[in-house]
Amino acid sequence: MKQAVNVRRRQLLLSSAAAATALGATSPAALAQAVKPKPLPKYVEWKYVDSLIVHSSNTIETKRAAFGTSVIVPNDILFVRNNLPPPDEAITHDPDAWTLSVDGVGSPQKFTLGELKRMGIDTVATVLQCSGNGRGFFKHKASGAQWKVGAAGCVIWSGLPVATLLKAVGGVNGGMTFMTGTGGEKLPAGIDPKTIKVERSVPVQAIETALLAWELNGEPLSLAHGGPLRLVIPGYYGVNNVKYLSTLGFTDKETNASIQSSGYRIREIGKKGAPGQPSMFEMNVKSWINHPAGEGDAVSAGMVQINGVAFAGVNRVARVEVSIDGGKSWQNAGFVGPDLGPYAWRQFVLPVRLASGHYTLVSRATDAAGNTQPVERVENERAYGHNGWQDHGVKLSVV
Amino acid sequence: MKQAVNVRRRQLLLSSAAAATALGATSPAALAQAVKPKPLPKYVEWKYVDSLIVHSSNTIETKRAAFGTSVIVPNDILFVRNNLPPPDEAITHDPDAWTLSVDGVGSPQKFTLGELKRMGIDTVATVLQCSGNGRGFFKHKASGAQWKVGAAGCVIWSGLPVATLLKAVGGVNGGMTFMTGTGGEKLPAGIDPKTIKVERSVPVQAIETALLAWELNGEPLSLAHGGPLRLVIPGYYGVNNVKYLSTLGFTDKETNASIQSSGYRIREIGKKGAPGQPSMFEMNVKSWINHPAGEGDAVSAGMVQINGVAFAGVNRVARVEVSIDGGKSWQNAGFVGPDLGPYAWRQFVLPVRLASGHYTLVSRATDAAGNTQPVERVENERAYGHNGWQDHGVKLSVV
Repeated sequence: MKQAVNVRRRQLLLSSAAAATALGATSPAALAQAVKPKPLPKYVEWKYVDSLIVHSSNTIETKRAAFGTSVIVPNDILFVRNNLPPPDEAITHDPDAWTLSVDGVGSPQKFTLGELKRMGIDTVATVLQCSGNGRGFFKHKASGAQWKVGAAGCVIWSGLPVATLLKAVGGVNGGMTFMTGTGGEKLPAGIDPKTIKVERSVPVQAIETALLAWELNGEPLSLAHGGPLRLVIPGYYGVNNVKYLSTLGFTDKETNASIQSSGYRIREIGKKGAPGQPSMFEMNVKSWINHPAGEGDAVSAGMVQINGVAFAGVNRVARVEVSIDGGKSWQNAGFVGPDLGPYAWRQFVLPVRLASGHYTLVSRATDAAGNTQPVERVENERAYGHNGWQDHGVKLSVV
Repeated sequence: MKQAVNVRRRQLLLSSAAAATALGATSPAALAQAVKPKPLPKYVEWKYVDSLIVHSSNTIETKRAAFGTSVIVPNDILFVRNNLPPPDEAITHDPDAWTLSVDGVGSPQKFTLGELKRMGIDTVATVLQCSGNGRGFFKHKASGAQWKVGAAGCVIWSGLPVATLLKAVGGVNGGMTFMTGTGGEKLPAGIDPKTIKVERSVPVQAIETALLAWELNGEPLSLAHGGPLRLVIPGYYGVNNVKYLSTLGFTDKETNASIQSSGYRIREIGKKGAPGQPSMFEMNVKSWINHPAGEGDAVSAGMVQINGVAFAGVNRVARVEVSIDGGKSWQNAGFVGPDLGPYAWRQFVLPVRLASGHYTLVSRATDAAGNTQPVERVENERAYGHNGWQDHGVKLSVV
């Protein structure tokens, strides 16, 4: 089992010669990509370019083979998905000066981040996943980045619980059924703001677990990931975790911003998005295999530790089965490593002895509520929420 | 509560101008240090220099204010302590080719790291801490780096359990009471190898939890932290976690290498190290406050979230008390964030309302076995194992 990404170096340190040496064991295709990587945009130039697939300046995916087995995905290789270009990096230079407006509460007011930091601290591990993760497996050429498995990562956030903030502002006003977060991106002039602004509403019950986060994996939240302040809704798809959070409102209706009213809605292929269609809130149960990644040279026969990740939105993942014959027969995999709580993913491992031949490795997770991944994707216009196990499989040659 | 380190940038990206902007809110002393940081040595140039104190090329400390509240210390800011200069970085370019010799077992043999990876995987969170962490608080000018709190970090390792390896090599030979790890550093010619080589023995019982690690915090183990392969002994001081592991032996005696026979021994001030004196094996119960770090400007009056870390070697930490009056009165702090297991540290938080004045903040941890941190350091020649709570306190001005 060779590892496609052996040595990770940042873009600025990576010379072609070093890449050729470091990646000597991988396929010619991987090598060519490493020698001439699509460059990272300026605001994420500190990331490890050779662990990433740059789809566009606002859509950057973690390579399947770059995921480790240590539960957490480090900031250097975590995927990026921005709905708008990020604000100027200057906003992270004095993060404590960032301001948040709180509306729809007993005592609406503004807080600086410095003030929020003094009100409380909690820490939670969550899977951050783009709604379109897995879009690259759909056949109907849905618009958007063609993510495979790497628009997701398990990370640890620190910040102020929304519930603690609410105690300080007199609680949520009566009749408010949504919590609405507004991003602080600068909107271009001459366009109706509601068609482009990043503003998402989630059911108000999310206040029980939501966090106003200023730290990611032990470091101040970077611009790339929504710093200085991001709304984190554990178990919900990434889009609900509003970056550069400037307003937190409690409302009786969902926002009319396009990203909510027509965007991130599940509907049949060919249909337009509209309110009333299911919105991308809670994530479904999902798993995939990271190693062997099936992307490099053939693996030599013998023992192989098949491993990957499994999670289930707001539910705990309870069980993962692995098949080496494309789903004809299944074996239970074991979990390894610390359990970081219900919103984190678990690492699973199944040791198997493989003779030479061709294999299709697939994994299938079941959550604590009894939900199991389906075989197939659920076809939908924007190719959201793919948790079918078949498409996520790995083709492996053993020699 | 201002944070001394607001924006972290790597050395190569850090211009004086950017540093001045980024650190505008800190004290003049901190600013001067940031503008002209002592440079990181080549093998760790990928780290965040402004979160680190470079004592020497082989001793690099995490700043107190740089620790977050997200349990894990990311690789970018994790301390470094090498007993010898690291091997050439080329050894990490094809990590799977690294070889490990296993001796003192039924069937002694060599394995490549590629082979070890196929034998099993486990993942464990541990506190990695240098024996000399806290040496900087001693008064007798013990030789070695003058670490304060930052020669420690909580990290997640992945690798092969030693217990799994032992099943494949016929188990430990009878009568073997120590597990001995040898580092793969190149030794200079003309010096008796045993006086300089990094070779450590630990009681053989450590096989129950020991790991042969190739991954740190989700990334391939870097040269700085012992890659391609490091021996991890959960709950033991850093020196036992042998880097660049080239031989794992099971022996009836401790190694006669100086680092074991006379080094890392607790003895009275003025005495020489010798076998028979207590060796730096299991870590003791310890805690300290990271925020407020007491290193910058005065904090304004009002609520403050006093937070820090607590751990207890091979025991779970059970309780942390915090005092704002230098230990005259105590309050129980709460734990936040996921519990990563017995060898990890816990983050503690105590919210307090502070009026203007001067405070001495201290913390005191108790482990599950009932051990509590002492008030004072235990004086010893090399200033090892400091867990006295008084010295680890923070002086705070509130205005």
